Amino acid sequence: MRSVRPAAPQLAGLEPYDPKYLPACALLSANENPRDVGEKLRREIMREVARVPLNRYPDPLANDLRDLIAEANGLSREQVLVGNGGDELLFDVALAWGGPGRTFLNLPPTFSVYEANARLTGTAVASVPRRADFSIDEEAVLARLAEGDVDYLVITSPNNPTGALAREEFVLSVLDATDALVVVDEAYFEFSRRTVRPYLAQHENLAVLRTFSKAFSLAGVRMGYLLAGERVVRELAKVRQPYSVDAVSQAVARVVYENRAEFEPGIQSIIEERARVAEGLRAIPGVTPFPSDANYVLFRMEDASSAWEALYARGVLVRDFSRAPYLEGCLRASIGTPEENDAFLRALREVAMGKCDVRVPSARTTERADAAEPRAD
Amino acid sequence: MRSVRPAAPQLAGLEPYDPKYLPACALLSANENPRDVGEKLRREIMREVARVPLNRYPDPLANDLRDLIAEANGLSREQVLVGNGGDELLFDVALAWGGPGRTFLNLPPTFSVYEANARLTGTAVASVPRRADFSIDEEAVLARLAEGDVDYLVITSPNNPTGALAREEFVLSVLDATDALVVVDEAYFEFSRRTVRPYLAQHENLAVLRTFSKAFSLAGVRMGYLLAGERVVRELAKVRQPYSVDAVSQAVARVVYENRAEFEPGIQSIIEERARVAEGLRAIPGVTPFPSDANYVLFRMEDASSAWEALYARGVLVRDFSRAPYLEGCLRASIGTPEENDAFLRALREVAMGKCDVRVPSARTTERADAAEPRAD
Repeated sequence: MRSVRPAAPQLAGLEPYDPKYLPACALLSANENPRDVGEKLRREIMREVARVPLNRYPDPLANDLRDLIAEANGLSREQVLVGNGGDELLFDVALAWGGPGRTFLNLPPTFSVYEANARLTGTAVASVPRRADFSIDEEAVLARLAEGDVDYLVITSPNNPTGALAREEFVLSVLDATDALVVVDEAYFEFSRRTVRPYLAQHENLAVLRTFSKAFSLAGVRMGYLLAGERVVRELAKVRQPYSVDAVSQAVARVVYENRAEFEPGIQSIIEERARVAEGLRAIPGVTPFPSDANYVLFRMEDASSAWEALYARGVLVRDFSRAPYLEGCLRASIGTPEENDAFLRALREVAMGKCDVRVPSARTTERADAAEPRAD
Repeated sequence: MRSVRPAAPQLAGLEPYDPKYLPACALLSANENPRDVGEKLRREIMREVARVPLNRYPDPLANDLRDLIAEANGLSREQVLVGNGGDELLFDVALAWGGPGRTFLNLPPTFSVYEANARLTGTAVASVPRRADFSIDEEAVLARLAEGDVDYLVITSPNNPTGALAREEFVLSVLDATDALVVVDEAYFEFSRRTVRPYLAQHENLAVLRTFSKAFSLAGVRMGYLLAGERVVRELAKVRQPYSVDAVSQAVARVVYENRAEFEPGIQSIIEERARVAEGLRAIPGVTPFPSDANYVLFRMEDASSAWEALYARGVLVRDFSRAPYLEGCLRASIGTPEENDAFLRALREVAMGKCDVRVPSARTTERADAAEPRAD
């Protein structure tokens, strides 16, 4: 047997990502939209998909979709880039603005993909941790940027998994303080109703990242987009995989984007439910929810890991961050339908009130170890 | 206006890839299958797509599809990795086995993506050019490998864009001579009917790359797969984008793979047409075709660049490699339907017989500059 030499040394400590999805009655672990696209829209999607020539390569840059997004945002096609989910665009940023000898500034706890991408691309990672309430340590960030070596950073607004928006004045002061590329990750902006997009006109170093995976119910289709100046888009276009966004996904996304008003009632329901879930959590003794502008709520409690198991035994799957750095004792629940949220609150109430003695098979415990890793949603 | 600092220096010379697809009667530039999936299969695909929950994240590793592919190849799930086209898997290889301080061995002229990926990941590129007839300089490759610093190489078999298989004995001698990762890119293996897959059992350093984009008519869906030892698959799984293969593409690919026998008549037709096209090319004065085991034929002629324009003016789009290194004077024509191949041969005959005086608008000339770049198909 001929052996193979080891892969690059930076892979030594990594684990392949495989969440081993768990079946559950209420899937509240991945910040998906609990409602699939409606039947009428689905029919229109199917009509469009039926027209896609499967045997031909897709338009590499998805220009029809770019035009739709550009027009809705008052931008030109050259200021829009679409990707295979926001994930691909985040990796492209690391590849183009990071790399050996360059530095990424991370604001943990936040979406773990940013740091993973930096490490994969050989980018140095500087960190300014958030305060105990998960707000950004604004002075420390500005002080770190003043050192001049940061090449790019990501401000997640609302932040995942903690939930709150970044202050707009802070984003502006960062844009003025540095020529680093400032990516504002607005994956959840449809639930916060706030965007820094208007600042694109004056700040060539701003990029706004969005996704179809959350508000638009297309997590399964993988579609993200980035709004930025032409120069930034041009550099990212150099490093992207030319055919990363397939022709079927382009067709689905066009229909969904043209009909995005139809998602509005669902979004409104999630915003209302978010307030109700937060209130419900506050009413449970020993449970502390953090404020959220997104479609999930992070909360802290004693024995969070056991609570996760007990919730799962009751058919409710949430995300376990209790062993993640800065997030000790924290779980994150996506906002589902009113029924799912009721089921979640009811189960958590039981668990917190001391009925937390359910034993789950050990296989589930193993799988949960993966679920604890917050990567990629 | 706040400016942004430059992207990483290795991007300075790159151009974004945008082929600006040209409409034509005979699309023979991208080695696609000229026949889309049949109507019956299309209906089955649509039934499966209709069942995909669009709002839920896909299975990251596409395990159902992995199982189908594994079974058909006598392997286990852990020996199969699927990707967003073969392109993603090629990039994953560069990320995992390349990187700063590591070396990729290229055998130009070949698929230009290999070298582009090495450069994007900071991998050093060593080159052993092919001989004048585009056969691999086998002794030179083995001598270069003996230096011990090569971390991975790609043997493209059949080679793109030149067309011929690598000798199986040579592949074996490479596998024995090095512990570098040896990727054998079999994107066109359904047209060559030859594979080195059986050697996986004895060579942990072998990986076989395949795609659904050619024989299986799914260029628009983006689906590739890699067969290798568990250790190689595990390392590649660490660097891949977790949700790169969307749920709809997984569903489409499952249906197509389960029904892949239906593509057999189309493949057989292409193999037969390939011989006819090669013969037709040899009969045209001044045109020299190279032997091909794939679904395209490379040929050399005087004034190839003008010939490309004259062909396009006659409704036939082929790929212009005439300004690419090692490929001076070469064009590549994908094998299409018999009618498309007739149109191509007829047009080329006219062009070569001196009726090559058609003027095309300058916009087309500009676009052709992109088409000359052989990236990504």
